[in-house]
Amino acid sequence: MERHLFLFVTADEAVFLAPTMYDTQLAAETPVSSIRTWDDGDDPTTLLATLGDELGIESGHLLVDDRMWARFTQDLRETFPEATFGLASQLLNDLRIRKDERELDHLRAAATVADDVSTAIRSLGADAIGLTETELADEIENRLSAAGGSSVSFETVVGSGPNGARPHHRHTDRTIQRGDPVVLDFGTVVESYPSDQTRTVVFAGDPPAGFEDAHDAVLAAQKAAIRAVEPGIEAQAVDHAARNVLDERGYGDRFIHRTGHGVGLEVHEPPYITDGNDRELEPGMVFSIEPGVYLDDEFGIRIEDLVVVTDEGCERLNRSPRTWEPVTGADD
Amino acid sequence: MERHLFLFVTADEAVFLAPTMYDTQLAAETPVSSIRTWDDGDDPTTLLATLGDELGIESGHLLVDDRMWARFTQDLRETFPEATFGLASQLLNDLRIRKDERELDHLRAAATVADDVSTAIRSLGADAIGLTETELADEIENRLSAAGGSSVSFETVVGSGPNGARPHHRHTDRTIQRGDPVVLDFGTVVESYPSDQTRTVVFAGDPPAGFEDAHDAVLAAQKAAIRAVEPGIEAQAVDHAARNVLDERGYGDRFIHRTGHGVGLEVHEPPYITDGNDRELEPGMVFSIEPGVYLDDEFGIRIEDLVVVTDEGCERLNRSPRTWEPVTGADD
Repeated sequence: MERHLFLFVTADEAVFLAPTMYDTQLAAETPVSSIRTWDDGDDPTTLLATLGDELGIESGHLLVDDRMWARFTQDLRETFPEATFGLASQLLNDLRIRKDERELDHLRAAATVADDVSTAIRSLGADAIGLTETELADEIENRLSAAGGSSVSFETVVGSGPNGARPHHRHTDRTIQRGDPVVLDFGTVVESYPSDQTRTVVFAGDPPAGFEDAHDAVLAAQKAAIRAVEPGIEAQAVDHAARNVLDERGYGDRFIHRTGHGVGLEVHEPPYITDGNDRELEPGMVFSIEPGVYLDDEFGIRIEDLVVVTDEGCERLNRSPRTWEPVTGADD
Repeated sequence: MERHLFLFVTADEAVFLAPTMYDTQLAAETPVSSIRTWDDGDDPTTLLATLGDELGIESGHLLVDDRMWARFTQDLRETFPEATFGLASQLLNDLRIRKDERELDHLRAAATVADDVSTAIRSLGADAIGLTETELADEIENRLSAAGGSSVSFETVVGSGPNGARPHHRHTDRTIQRGDPVVLDFGTVVESYPSDQTRTVVFAGDPPAGFEDAHDAVLAAQKAAIRAVEPGIEAQAVDHAARNVLDERGYGDRFIHRTGHGVGLEVHEPPYITDGNDRELEPGMVFSIEPGVYLDDEFGIRIEDLVVVTDEGCERLNRSPRTWEPVTGADD
């Protein structure tokens, strides 16, 4: 938000510095009872200095939220010139990387909502032809909300035809054509935990030349990566398992992103499933496995599930069909 | 986003440092032709150091986007220990604060979409009773999208009954009751420019004791502030005009936020209409005028329009009725 709202956490206490207008809401919705407020027209940096003095942090080591805006970190640095700064993730990542049963229940519930919507959307079949990507994205988001999702986890991706070849395309006014491969990447949030899954489908008609072979290769890569997951291996081994398949199938240079990312309170968090990450997998870690192939000006393919590492291997949180053909709801 | 994506702008050139996966999209959607890419598995800070050396910025003064995340500013500071840092807004705010005709056209178009939806939603009348706040928010957002808005400008606020007493409440599962005052604060985006307007309505039934007087006071304060707008006065004079009315009417201590904020490419940007801001108003400035009164555990009232400063005074961008009674579309 654009107003100064800080939560300071020391070894002994937690204190909000917040605009007065949030006082009631913070008291009602957080367990923090100490709330210092500032009014519009006050200079919040003056209160910052006073509070810093009280808490004894002016010359400490301050870990700031990784996403804190520069305007606020600049104020902290100017107010506490003797302090040193680091990122809160240095402390929080390890506390959050293994999910407990309550968290897994929420992640499973969110995955189920998204799976149900994925299956329902695919059953549109030929009815989806002629819709714009944006209209289909709206339909997906409305259904996620109706099925119990509290919000989307990220802006829905509907990448039809050549638009699918851009991995982080969102949606446009392009009309979905017969035979278009369409990348559908979306998620929803249940009890603060997000889902994230991707299917690449053809709603009706015959896909373009080369599509079936490429889809088959991506699906084989995704399954190989899922089979590779077990406690004790390095995160990058899962990336390599997917990448090896696509290399062998001749698509190695078209797989231009990492294989996955952790999912928890944030939809992107550690562990990152990428070359060079030697972090060992542990039971309770949750991440995506989402290899893709992108052919510029033609189409893109990505298939993504979330998995949780178990004692022996992993459990897929997503169970909707991974085929590209129109489906009627059966699992694969 | 969570990946390192920087745009460096010097006096001579503009260069992206971006993940390879965004290469095609950046080339297609931006006028910047110089794009350096890094792959998953590369260390982007190494490329950052190389690029900084090439551009000759290692010991310069770097203005960073005000919202740049701490993880990226930390990387910049560690990579360029000799550089000094400031905020881009120091340069950009003055370039953006007066809107040209093209920008005003987009702002007017966005305001009209929101006005039409506001009027349509209010005409639900008794049909809105029994909906949850979230259901009504979904309905509003669907209609904004159907009417041509490309996205919402911020999460829709539906604050019914006591929930309206929290100025930044969003929406919950609370069911709207007969006689509830409901704060409806929402906006949409047209051609990258947002709208932002608020009405406080009673869909059906009789409002609680004290509501009519408070609504009348807020509306009088809002109109007084709009009348005060003209080039050459200080921004705070507009705030004082609203505040004086609410002080006189006995609601001064219930008006717990500033009167308004500028609106442009961001939904909150300068000029801020707040006590202490002596910036003089100039033709082309666009901002909200949104006094409110908040009675804890009872209800809240806020009435908001966007205005653009003209040569003689101001033009309201919003024209939907400001009354609290169910309306049928007539302007006030």
